[in-house]
Amino acid sequence: MSAGPGTPTRSAPIGPAALVADVERVLRDFFDSRRELVGEMGPTVVDAAAELEDFVLRGGKRTRPSFAWTGWLGAGGAADGPQAAAVLRACAALELVQACALIHDDIIDSSRTRRGFPTVHVDFEERHREREWSGDSGHFGISVGVLIGDLALAWADDMVAAAGLDAAAHRRFAPVWAAMRTEVMGGQLLDIHGEAGADDSVEAALRINRYKTAAYTVERPLHLGAALAAAGPPLVAAYREFGTDIGIAFQLRDDLLGVFGDPAVTGKPSGDDLREGKRTVLIAEALRRADADSPTAAKLLRTSLGTDLTPDEVTHLRALITDLGAVGEVERRIADLTDRGLAALESSSATAEAKQRLRAMALAATRRVA
Amino acid sequence: MSAGPGTPTRSAPIGPAALVADVERVLRDFFDSRRELVGEMGPTVVDAAAELEDFVLRGGKRTRPSFAWTGWLGAGGAADGPQAAAVLRACAALELVQACALIHDDIIDSSRTRRGFPTVHVDFEERHREREWSGDSGHFGISVGVLIGDLALAWADDMVAAAGLDAAAHRRFAPVWAAMRTEVMGGQLLDIHGEAGADDSVEAALRINRYKTAAYTVERPLHLGAALAAAGPPLVAAYREFGTDIGIAFQLRDDLLGVFGDPAVTGKPSGDDLREGKRTVLIAEALRRADADSPTAAKLLRTSLGTDLTPDEVTHLRALITDLGAVGEVERRIADLTDRGLAALESSSATAEAKQRLRAMALAATRRVA
Repeated sequence: MSAGPGTPTRSAPIGPAALVADVERVLRDFFDSRRELVGEMGPTVVDAAAELEDFVLRGGKRTRPSFAWTGWLGAGGAADGPQAAAVLRACAALELVQACALIHDDIIDSSRTRRGFPTVHVDFEERHREREWSGDSGHFGISVGVLIGDLALAWADDMVAAAGLDAAAHRRFAPVWAAMRTEVMGGQLLDIHGEAGADDSVEAALRINRYKTAAYTVERPLHLGAALAAAGPPLVAAYREFGTDIGIAFQLRDDLLGVFGDPAVTGKPSGDDLREGKRTVLIAEALRRADADSPTAAKLLRTSLGTDLTPDEVTHLRALITDLGAVGEVERRIADLTDRGLAALESSSATAEAKQRLRAMALAATRRVA
Repeated sequence: MSAGPGTPTRSAPIGPAALVADVERVLRDFFDSRRELVGEMGPTVVDAAAELEDFVLRGGKRTRPSFAWTGWLGAGGAADGPQAAAVLRACAALELVQACALIHDDIIDSSRTRRGFPTVHVDFEERHREREWSGDSGHFGISVGVLIGDLALAWADDMVAAAGLDAAAHRRFAPVWAAMRTEVMGGQLLDIHGEAGADDSVEAALRINRYKTAAYTVERPLHLGAALAAAGPPLVAAYREFGTDIGIAFQLRDDLLGVFGDPAVTGKPSGDDLREGKRTVLIAEALRRADADSPTAAKLLRTSLGTDLTPDEVTHLRALITDLGAVGEVERRIADLTDRGLAALESSSATAEAKQRLRAMALAATRRVA
């Protein structure tokens, strides 16, 4: 599995800094609003809520709220209008869905660190061990991590419910929000089935990208913004086309960086995705080409991926993947998707300012080097 | 940890049969409404959704929707009025919160079966093994179980959002719904910390019961019903008093049955809770009394609980717990709580019919033998 749904770990900042600060402010307000309820349950629950708050506020580029907010502006939302505060809170709630997805994903991937800190389940595993509590420390950590992720998911909905949207806006928002949450969980289910080897085709990898990253990271956030602004079907369709294309391109860029990125820039060991055996479109494309042209290469790929590769073996696999033409093919896909997405955006009725911002966000997401 | 939040496994039916059928009908309708979205994601996600649907529709006594609906009726809701269908759907959504709680709880407890079927994570573990997919089957099962539980939690909110409540009713409902979800997750966090040995006091065990069972199973469902009917503060207070008392009494009865219940009636091996080392009020009370009066008994209890006891050892521990006066003390608590809860109900402004139903539900929950 990847670094998580929407895999933002290697991406450059995407939204404007002032927007990021606003999102973090309303998230902080939301956590403040939970303190009384949590405090009544005593220090154990206070500690768990504090862990979630630290996790959410520690970092992240607020990609999803940025797309949602910009989508709302582009569909006619007024940043200084009476609905702006409620819309900002509803958009920021996406960060709590993302917290659940990442915390649970780290359990699924057995990841030990994230953003330079122990993952949530590992943090509680270590507390259990240090305090010499009874039972298995690893299982305790996983149990707490499952529950803290659940709390994040429940709180995401609570933040939407308490955002202050008017009833009509909430009615437009709810079905898109529902689709998005089902899609990201469906995408993760597809991903772990893919890793288990149920299907290593290019189509399967693209389908995972479609739901786990594209829909969840760009398409549905934009759609949520459009719904909040009561945008008509043509703008919704243009946003969704743009969002799907740019979201998939974003993931394809991430796949390339996971194999070819500079560790000094990405912050991840070189060739990490090869050692993890991630089933990306890049790898699926390499396998497809090898199966057609070179049984020896296909066998080497299948036996090497997901093993403890030496630096020399990583170098050799990179060369093999490049020589098979998989890198060129993925770059072509990124270019085609970006062109198509930008064209859909340009011909839409979104405001000129939003088009400019979304274009910049799209290029930041698909041309980045880290 | 127990058989799950609200531990319904040993209880007799609580709500009227017609209500149970209505709840199951609207749940079925909800699952039907998801099919298109899920179908787009392909057979893997369809299978996962089918697993959740089977889990929810396979059984359960619909305790929480029954309390919520009856609370609504008692606060003036009209079963044949224009809001009834929307209220029923909002109440039934509690079963999806419960599905998440149970599916995740079975992972936390490493439970292999529930209601005579493999638990969700075990079912997927077995599929992985049978199909000879790559990776660890146990970890795969847990991963899928985490995601299916997440889906249930997200769908609970979606079912509320799509229930058709008017905006004012939804605004009254949302903060109670928020409190309930936070409380049950907080209660589970307290429970696993209790099992790890952080605190084996009577107070800690009562606090777990308060949040994990009482608030979640009786108090908040009634509160939700009251909120939907726009009940005034006195009726809400009476419902919450009744709900807390009866909910805790319900759990205390469950604790007694877990140690002294007839396996032929409870469907659980005799003394199972002793072998699992469950930290119930009964056990905490026995430990408190032993610590005060008999160091030998205290040591025996602490070294025996949670181990693989023989039938003779179970018999011996039961006699010890009884002789220490813990059983009598728990029976006294149940009687006191039931009296107090029923008194709060009687003096409330709830309708006569609802009082009668709630009284019967309270007695079914606290005097049951299985």
